[in-house]
Amino acid sequence: MTEAVLVHPGKLHYFTREIFKRLRVPPQEASKIADVLVAADLGGVESQGVTRLPFFADRLSAGLVNRTPSLNVVEEKGGAVTLDGDNGPGPVVGIKAMELAIQKAEINGIGAVAVRNSNQLGMLGYYTRMALNEQMIGVAMTNDRPTITPPGGTHPLYSMNPIAIAIPTKEGKGPFVLELTTSPAGHEGYGLGLAVEILSGVLPGGAFGDELSGAEGDHPAVARIGHFFAALRIEAFGPFGHFRDRLDLMLKKLTFSSASGAPRVHYPGEPEYEAEEELRANGIPLSAPVARELEGLARRLDLRDAWEQVLASRKN
Amino acid sequence: MTEAVLVHPGKLHYFTREIFKRLRVPPQEASKIADVLVAADLGGVESQGVTRLPFFADRLSAGLVNRTPSLNVVEEKGGAVTLDGDNGPGPVVGIKAMELAIQKAEINGIGAVAVRNSNQLGMLGYYTRMALNEQMIGVAMTNDRPTITPPGGTHPLYSMNPIAIAIPTKEGKGPFVLELTTSPAGHEGYGLGLAVEILSGVLPGGAFGDELSGAEGDHPAVARIGHFFAALRIEAFGPFGHFRDRLDLMLKKLTFSSASGAPRVHYPGEPEYEAEEELRANGIPLSAPVARELEGLARRLDLRDAWEQVLASRKN
Repeated sequence: MTEAVLVHPGKLHYFTREIFKRLRVPPQEASKIADVLVAADLGGVESQGVTRLPFFADRLSAGLVNRTPSLNVVEEKGGAVTLDGDNGPGPVVGIKAMELAIQKAEINGIGAVAVRNSNQLGMLGYYTRMALNEQMIGVAMTNDRPTITPPGGTHPLYSMNPIAIAIPTKEGKGPFVLELTTSPAGHEGYGLGLAVEILSGVLPGGAFGDELSGAEGDHPAVARIGHFFAALRIEAFGPFGHFRDRLDLMLKKLTFSSASGAPRVHYPGEPEYEAEEELRANGIPLSAPVARELEGLARRLDLRDAWEQVLASRKN
Repeated sequence: MTEAVLVHPGKLHYFTREIFKRLRVPPQEASKIADVLVAADLGGVESQGVTRLPFFADRLSAGLVNRTPSLNVVEEKGGAVTLDGDNGPGPVVGIKAMELAIQKAEINGIGAVAVRNSNQLGMLGYYTRMALNEQMIGVAMTNDRPTITPPGGTHPLYSMNPIAIAIPTKEGKGPFVLELTTSPAGHEGYGLGLAVEILSGVLPGGAFGDELSGAEGDHPAVARIGHFFAALRIEAFGPFGHFRDRLDLMLKKLTFSSASGAPRVHYPGEPEYEAEEELRANGIPLSAPVARELEGLARRLDLRDAWEQVLASRKN
């Protein structure tokens, strides 16, 4: 295979799920991991899509991730929860945590779930988007293996520590979905990255900084990644319809303020929403190297049929 | 007066409070405004300190700010509150809002207060620091008069939209206090600035974007600034002692990672904490132009005695 191919999202999802089932992840959980990975590809965020499938699969095969975690609520007071991920797959733990944040926000107006002993989440925006159908604002952040050296320091002490925020907009429009990496953004990013490390690592009683060194790279070990999720029920602060109309006006003012000749002003999430419409219609592009890697994985796991179905679905 | 002077913090606070009392702000509220302004000077954040006194005073004199606001909770569900600031002075509204967020977090583990119809808060870190003695994490953000043009846009549609986060550390150490401006930080800052605009402006049912044009500048009008505050009770997520010890370890690892020859790695809030110790001992520096402005204000308001006491307190 030497050329990029465009493949059907549903077939790619099926293939991804079968891979995890073959790795003895229970079907429902395998489906969740596939949801998160394929959603990234559909949003045009390739780096968090099925290109991560071999990495996720390798860590499961190596016994570094718990296929059947017991997700335990270890603290719970009002809208605040601490969840122990029991080293489960990131998407399984993350979806559970965001569900809890949403449940808490349903009752308390606002819910927050700190998570310890988890693994890589994949695209962070996936979890925040879970809040949108509930007319809630979703927030998510996570730590990861340290790759960033603090200004004036000698060695990496935290990761890019991303933050995502999703806010519901009028129907038929792309939701506001912001996903940003904190740490490389200079001095201010440094502080925000540390705040994410504290909320995701220290607050849930989990690991932080160089304790996460095994999460990726040459010396793999149990990851001990931590997260922080929050949900805000908009109706708890005021009428949802008013919020939606006013936000629509704000976003219209933004996009109508485009300079002539300049590219149209977009709000965060809008380009990804447009990408998704296009990719659902025309297929998800897999580069030749990614396709070869997935083919190799299919061969090793005796899933060539499912892979053939992906290829047969190609649109060009 | 042609030289900078170093003045006693207590005398400067007294003078500031008297200015607002003379402007018919009730004594307790005048004291709160003085707290916020002088705290900025004590933290070395001059731009938010008494240099803002003439601005605050002018808007009160012009009748643009309500001296005796009725701070009304307009929505309240679980840990979520919307507060109408009734156009009161920013520090009066902000302190009340953060008190409410803390009360809610005491009961619900997490509390969030969205505020509409307010005014400039001054140093945002002041409000987040209110959470520290309660063993809580404090979060604050605000919108303001638009000064930032979105990428590709033609005119300003939001302000620097700052965010502050304060996190309690071991006693005897400076708390973690991060204060950052979102919008000038490029593309990622753009999205974060918009999120702050939505949480501070749209969520409380208040004003946003160019509706805030009168908040400062040549065409003053009622400001209609909005804020968003949150408090997280650490004990609701796990034992506070464990959190404090683990955070201490994290901050030690950071500061011990300094490269030889490079300046020591600081965490956010540490330099301000050290500045405060120094300024409490040696006095707050007022530049000659600021001192002249304050003297002029004292003359106009017939408060020359209080100003003379500030000058008599000078340390150099």
